[in-house]
Amino acid sequence: MKILIINGPNLQALGRREVGIYGEKSWNDIQDELQSLAAELQIELEFFQSNCEGSLIDRIWLAAENNLAGIVINPGGLTHTSVALLDALRGAALPAVEVHLSNITSREPYRQHSITAAGCIGIVAGFKTQSYLLALRGLYEYLNQK
Amino acid sequence: MKILIINGPNLQALGRREVGIYGEKSWNDIQDELQSLAAELQIELEFFQSNCEGSLIDRIWLAAENNLAGIVINPGGLTHTSVALLDALRGAALPAVEVHLSNITSREPYRQHSITAAGCIGIVAGFKTQSYLLALRGLYEYLNQK
Amino acid sequence: MKILIINGPNLQALGRREVGIYGEKSWNDIQDELQSLAAELQIELEFFQSNCEGSLIDRIWLAAENNLAGIVINPGGLTHTSVALLDALRGAALPAVEVHLSNITSREPYRQHSITAAGCIGIVAGFKTQSYLLALRGLYEYLNQK
Amino acid sequence: MKILIINGPNLQALGRREVGIYGEKSWNDIQDELQSLAAELQIELEFFQSNCEGSLIDRIWLAAENNLAGIVINPGGLTHTSVALLDALRGAALPAVEVHLSNITSREPYRQHSITAAGCIGIVAGFKTQSYLLALRGLYEYLNQK
Amino acid sequence: MKILIINGPNLQALGRREVGIYGEKSWNDIQDELQSLAAELQIELEFFQSNCEGSLIDRIWLAAENNLAGIVINPGGLTHTSVALLDALRGAALPAVEVHLSNITSREPYRQHSITAAGCIGIVAGFKTQSYLLALRGLYEYLNQK
Amino acid sequence: MKILIINGPNLQALGRREVGIYGEKSWNDIQDELQSLAAELQIELEFFQSNCEGSLIDRIWLAAENNLAGIVINPGGLTHTSVALLDALRGAALPAVEVHLSNITSREPYRQHSITAAGCIGIVAGFKTQSYLLALRGLYEYLNQK
Amino acid sequence: MKILIINGPNLQALGRREVGIYGEKSWNDIQDELQSLAAELQIELEFFQSNCEGSLIDRIWLAAENNLAGIVINPGGLTHTSVALLDALRGAALPAVEVHLSNITSREPYRQHSITAAGCIGIVAGFKTQSYLLALRGLYEYLNQK
Amino acid sequence: MKILIINGPNLQALGRREVGIYGEKSWNDIQDELQSLAAELQIELEFFQSNCEGSLIDRIWLAAENNLAGIVINPGGLTHTSVALLDALRGAALPAVEVHLSNITSREPYRQHSITAAGCIGIVAGFKTQSYLLALRGLYEYLNQK
Amino acid sequence: MKILIINGPNLQALGRREVGIYGEKSWNDIQDELQSLAAELQIELEFFQSNCEGSLIDRIWLAAENNLAGIVINPGGLTHTSVALLDALRGAALPAVEVHLSNITSREPYRQHSITAAGCIGIVAGFKTQSYLLALRGLYEYLNQK
Amino acid sequence: MKILIINGPNLQALGRREVGIYGEKSWNDIQDELQSLAAELQIELEFFQSNCEGSLIDRIWLAAENNLAGIVINPGGLTHTSVALLDALRGAALPAVEVHLSNITSREPYRQHSITAAGCIGIVAGFKTQSYLLALRGLYEYLNQK
Amino acid sequence: MKILIINGPNLQALGRREVGIYGEKSWNDIQDELQSLAAELQIELEFFQSNCEGSLIDRIWLAAENNLAGIVINPGGLTHTSVALLDALRGAALPAVEVHLSNITSREPYRQHSITAAGCIGIVAGFKTQSYLLALRGLYEYLNQK
Amino acid sequence: MKILIINGPNLQALGRREVGIYGEKSWNDIQDELQSLAAELQIELEFFQSNCEGSLIDRIWLAAENNLAGIVINPGGLTHTSVALLDALRGAALPAVEVHLSNITSREPYRQHSITAAGCIGIVAGFKTQSYLLALRGLYEYLNQK
Repeated sequence: MKILIINGPNLQALGRREVGIYGEKSWNDIQDELQSLAAELQIELEFFQSNCEGSLIDRIWLAAENNLAGIVINPGGLTHTSVALLDALRGAALPAVEVHLSNITSREPYRQHSITAAGCIGIVAGFKTQSYLLALRGLYEYLNQK
Repeated sequence: MKILIINGPNLQALGRREVGIYGEKSWNDIQDELQSLAAELQIELEFFQSNCEGSLIDRIWLAAENNLAGIVINPGGLTHTSVALLDALRGAALPAVEVHLSNITSREPYRQHSITAAGCIGIVAGFKTQSYLLALRGLYEYLNQK
Repeated sequence: MKILIINGPNLQALGRREVGIYGEKSWNDIQDELQSLAAELQIELEFFQSNCEGSLIDRIWLAAENNLAGIVINPGGLTHTSVALLDALRGAALPAVEVHLSNITSREPYRQHSITAAGCIGIVAGFKTQSYLLALRGLYEYLNQK
Repeated sequence: MKILIINGPNLQALGRREVGIYGEKSWNDIQDELQSLAAELQIELEFFQSNCEGSLIDRIWLAAENNLAGIVINPGGLTHTSVALLDALRGAALPAVEVHLSNITSREPYRQHSITAAGCIGIVAGFKTQSYLLALRGLYEYLNQK
Repeated sequence: MKILIINGPNLQALGRREVGIYGEKSWNDIQDELQSLAAELQIELEFFQSNCEGSLIDRIWLAAENNLAGIVINPGGLTHTSVALLDALRGAALPAVEVHLSNITSREPYRQHSITAAGCIGIVAGFKTQSYLLALRGLYEYLNQK
Repeated sequence: MKILIINGPNLQALGRREVGIYGEKSWNDIQDELQSLAAELQIELEFFQSNCEGSLIDRIWLAAENNLAGIVINPGGLTHTSVALLDALRGAALPAVEVHLSNITSREPYRQHSITAAGCIGIVAGFKTQSYLLALRGLYEYLNQK
Repeated sequence: MKILIINGPNLQALGRREVGIYGEKSWNDIQDELQSLAAELQIELEFFQSNCEGSLIDRIWLAAENNLAGIVINPGGLTHTSVALLDALRGAALPAVEVHLSNITSREPYRQHSITAAGCIGIVAGFKTQSYLLALRGLYEYLNQK
Repeated sequence: MKILIINGPNLQALGRREVGIYGEKSWNDIQDELQSLAAELQIELEFFQSNCEGSLIDRIWLAAENNLAGIVINPGGLTHTSVALLDALRGAALPAVEVHLSNITSREPYRQHSITAAGCIGIVAGFKTQSYLLALRGLYEYLNQK
Repeated sequence: MKILIINGPNLQALGRREVGIYGEKSWNDIQDELQSLAAELQIELEFFQSNCEGSLIDRIWLAAENNLAGIVINPGGLTHTSVALLDALRGAALPAVEVHLSNITSREPYRQHSITAAGCIGIVAGFKTQSYLLALRGLYEYLNQK
Repeated sequence: MKILIINGPNLQALGRREVGIYGEKSWNDIQDELQSLAAELQIELEFFQSNCEGSLIDRIWLAAENNLAGIVINPGGLTHTSVALLDALRGAALPAVEVHLSNITSREPYRQHSITAAGCIGIVAGFKTQSYLLALRGLYEYLNQK
Repeated sequence: MKILIINGPNLQALGRREVGIYGEKSWNDIQDELQSLAAELQIELEFFQSNCEGSLIDRIWLAAENNLAGIVINPGGLTHTSVALLDALRGAALPAVEVHLSNITSREPYRQHSITAAGCIGIVAGFKTQSYLLALRGLYEYLNQK
Repeated sequence: MKILIINGPNLQALGRREVGIYGEKSWNDIQDELQSLAAELQIELEFFQSNCEGSLIDRIWLAAENNLAGIVINPGGLTHTSVALLDALRGAALPAVEVHLSNITSREPYRQHSITAAGCIGIVAGFKTQSYLLALRGLYEYLNQK
């Protein structure tokens, strides 16, 4: 079982950017923690980050072609604006989980609604980098129960 | 470390109600699974369910008085309407995680916004009964890292 | 065939409250008229009134457990605000009819939309206490035609 | 006592149109059932259907000139758009009851609000063709109690 | 110089309908007063009333074909809903003045906006039947100054 | 019978400002035309223009103290924003007519709604400087008929 | 295969009305061009134009009774306001294509949304009289592929 | 003269909860201060607090039955959501004053509108625990002047 | 301790204007009552009324320069429209209390929101002229507790 | 005459993605059909697909530089969100036609409005892959008539 | 070349008011800096500040009468509310530049929209007192290039 | 001191595109003028233009890594839609100034609000290519004063 972990715009800079909101861990730290959990769950991971909506969409379709089992995605700022990304998630039809470091429900009004989450099975938000681990675990259980 | 698990209106009927949306497990099944996880994490749990907003608020304040470590709460339909419940969560000031069985972001418009989540550290939604386990795990990690 | 008649907040005070809007008959008068109609239709009735949303929800689930045939409900002010009550009506899955004494479509804007009616098969509004009798009759015919 | 039963646009086609939503009975079937009830109540009925807003308005004023006792009206799609029809109902000042076959409160958003109901004493919706019978009965009782 | 005076839905009933709002004069009274003014101004008038939007549109185009000089129109309830009537006024391209008996700016919110007035050179509202005379006079001056 | 003619902000500049919209006549020209009409109607006029909302309010109350018969007012840009001016018109309780040179119903959205007109008996808009004459005539007839 | 071509309000005046927006061809010109295309496609056409919503609805139902194959309709100003026309298109259940001469997506805000198009299989807008030809061709292909 | 002082959800915790917003005094402190003022004014007080909307409504009706003179109420979070509480205040028809510790007009948007205040004669907000004393004094004067 | 009492537009006319809404006392009566209370509290008062927003702003800044202790202000119709007045209250930074004679929360929608109250410590509304006395007392206590 | 056919995000996957909504033909199938039509019309085509908004914009400007005759574009999910794409279409100033496979007017609310269509001469939607052929034909006729 | 620098409500108090938002320099400091720049550019300046909307409007018209070359204006709180000021800027038809000390786009929602800027050639915001200098320079270049 | 000048989508085409709105100078012309000003201010500039949101975000983060002093950015159409670009500006935390050639406050409604400006210290709009020079100067002064 192989799962794709996708990070959208500006998330390459985790640990350097607005630490009060997003936490102090870097994208590399998160990858390490996810790899540890993957080893525990005996699954494989692929990682992808891009600031470009188009590249994210390309990568989602590639995952579908390669028959990956599912996707964990933090769409960053595209969460609130990208119908194209939603269409990719729906079209590629892999089970996906949306992740947010911060609790988007208590931030600025324009961050409280997610367009992309409607293309996912569920959402995990607010646990800082823990959110990724919970999402991976949730997706793993979901895939096992299917 | 003792954590309170709260279920709001209509959630006593899990497993009997709209199974396509909420899954087939009963509230008792979920309690059993949560107890297993609690044993693994070496923490204690208390459970509470009520259809009455006032009783839920009472119970949150009692948890604060008894110095519980945190709360996992599925506010049911009150999620979208109850400022009073939000005030209880903020006022009692225990770390709380909001749980939903379904992916509220892709349901009817009036279910897409959560009022109460603004009183929580995070939200887990869409994993059916798995949501409770992920939320408990996320809260446990949060408490350990404080 | 047994049917539950539910009255929500403030409806215990019918006949004493804002008589110009709601009419002069008391809740007891209405119960008497409903019992007469029930005798004519050869069905049984149960009555319940509470000012507490939670108790109303409890009572709806109890009706489902007791296999009642249906529900006639006037949710009072909760009509316009309670997603939890809507969830109870949908979840319990008994045929229900929503009743209003006044013609809610021509009152204040916030009274023109019913949240709870979406959990009912139909709505009768504006006939003062007659509304209950029409609703019971409508529900009775609905149940007979199923 | 003579009462006018009015059907608005597209309701000539009842029984042929979107049967899942509107039921299987035809406009003739409904007229027969209404005549039976009228016989029981010892009142007279007139029937009118038109797809033209203007003709419906003409007919309402004619009813007022002829001193009919009241109106039962299903304005069809005009329910949600016609201020002119509302004005006719208010101006002619005959007691009127609005009828809908389906439960408009749980359909598309633009069908959830009735403009014309504000010119009526009450509304009955969701009982398929039963709605007409309940409305006639309600109007009859209303007229008797005046 | 010949001018068309058009009355929309329900205005055939002036003097009989909601007298507190619309005044006590009948459509015939208004026609007499308008004829007196027309005699004074040495112009001719044609009158038309219909409850049917389509007939009103037909009549507007006929006026254009007959090269009338302008139109005074009270669109009644269509004022607030009819894009088709607006299109007729714009398309026929005769100078038109919109008339209202009541001061629509201080009535129900849905009566405060006029769709059709955007197809007119001006609007006169609130002077009861006087509104027609002022509108005719205003149109007459407008035509003279062109 | 003495009537006050009030012009609000920027209307001192009529004839110099955006001539395509407001016409070519100056405030003096309009005063002359109004005086001619006043002579014909055998009434007296007072004129007042100010760019200051407060001075306009002062002047309205002064008119009430001096028992003037009524007011013709063009509130300019305050039309769409001034609750205080509406309160003055309502409080002073002199019959008032609102005037606009342009047809405000077909201009920018924020110009389509009048706050102040709700304190007037009627409105005349779109006849360029003719609007004042029609308004004065309408007010004169209104006062005569009281 | 017989197809009905319907034109709504004000479209009898094509070629005479607002030529900059709607183009210079008349309704007769369009009929000729459509007949040429019909000859090429070996299908029959019927034409209908009315300014009356009710007559348009009558005609749609007649087409259903006569088992026509489909409808090409330009609802004119009713596009943006008529739920009754939408209901006719849905109820009659003939494949329909909505046509507009102008590109409604770049006109006034109230022209950007079509109510009636939701009762059609598709929409063609912006090609002036060409729109009718494209719509007929599209409908023809649609019917052939069913 | 006996007056009921009601506190809604979460207000039992005053002095412990979000002290920066609500002040440091406890519900007991406030009761003591109110009793002192009552002694000065020679009136009697009753106190009631509940987190349950239904119990608050029960208590309001009880006050009406017991012929209390009036009510001072802080509805807490229900202020912004409870039509049922508004109905109780209107129905019971005792003079009531709404109290808020904080200045709700400058807090989150959803706290700026009060539904319940429309069932009260007035509102006092922003003076922390002083608000209760001012409200009691205002109600006392109101009752004396009736 | 010296406190400024400010009345905004139209409040010079208290006792003469819409007595049903605002009460029968004049601005002089209120000043007398406020002076009595000031004597009791051993503080000094200054009074200011203007219909001009600019003069009100000037007066607020003057109060700040003269080191007055606080402000009681009834902004009249400016309450709902004036950002400039809000800025003056915030900028001058004297403790201020907003006063309304009527219960603005149950009046027209555009009167239910106060812009200026966000520059005040609190609000008192609905007690007719009593509102001023309560506001002064509230401000006095506030200043004493600082 | 050379025309550019552009497909936006996710449209490379046609025939594989949500076949119920978008049809079963692939992007290659559509290209073949378009080439056949182009041969018939004696024009040349270029094809471009990208998931990246920026690449689409680049390609539109390139077409302008190369003096292509026009553009047929299906912007996919960008239709509803991209002002930048609209600006490219307007700026490059080539005649463009917007294409949609599905009837966007009857899908989710956020898909009912097109931002980009305002930069096109017209729109064709709902004919599945036929939409492209109709659009190309419509554009061809448009170019011939210029 | 003479340019008018206008400051609206509360800006006389710069340097004393909310220094964190508006900066520490006084209105005199800004005048000095502007005079230095004017000397460098060899132009003349006039300064005007008022808290009264009417006086600001008067001054703008005076500038037009005196043939000044242009206006730099900071309308303060009137930015967001004054249609009358917008009308003055448009009517007087002098090139104007709107200035704000703070970045209004990131402040409270009601400060994010400028009504008055639509009467200006451009806007400079967020540079504290530097904004005035940039605006003057921008206006100077604009005037030179005309 | 080195400053990055960024141009977003479609701005490579300045001087060729909608010249009436954006002016006649090309992107090269602007670069030359900016270099002249940079020489005068003794600072260095880097230039970047892309039609791709992702590349713009990449470039902003690169500037932060390279310790540039600040950014002048014209986000083009992304101004009104891109939360991701806002996040980049906030995250990278370099002082930035937003530039627009046209006065966005007086254009189409969807162009009047800037999302990205909330990540900048200020905004300069409406001075055509002058806007860039003013922005650079404003940023330079801002950096000097820190």
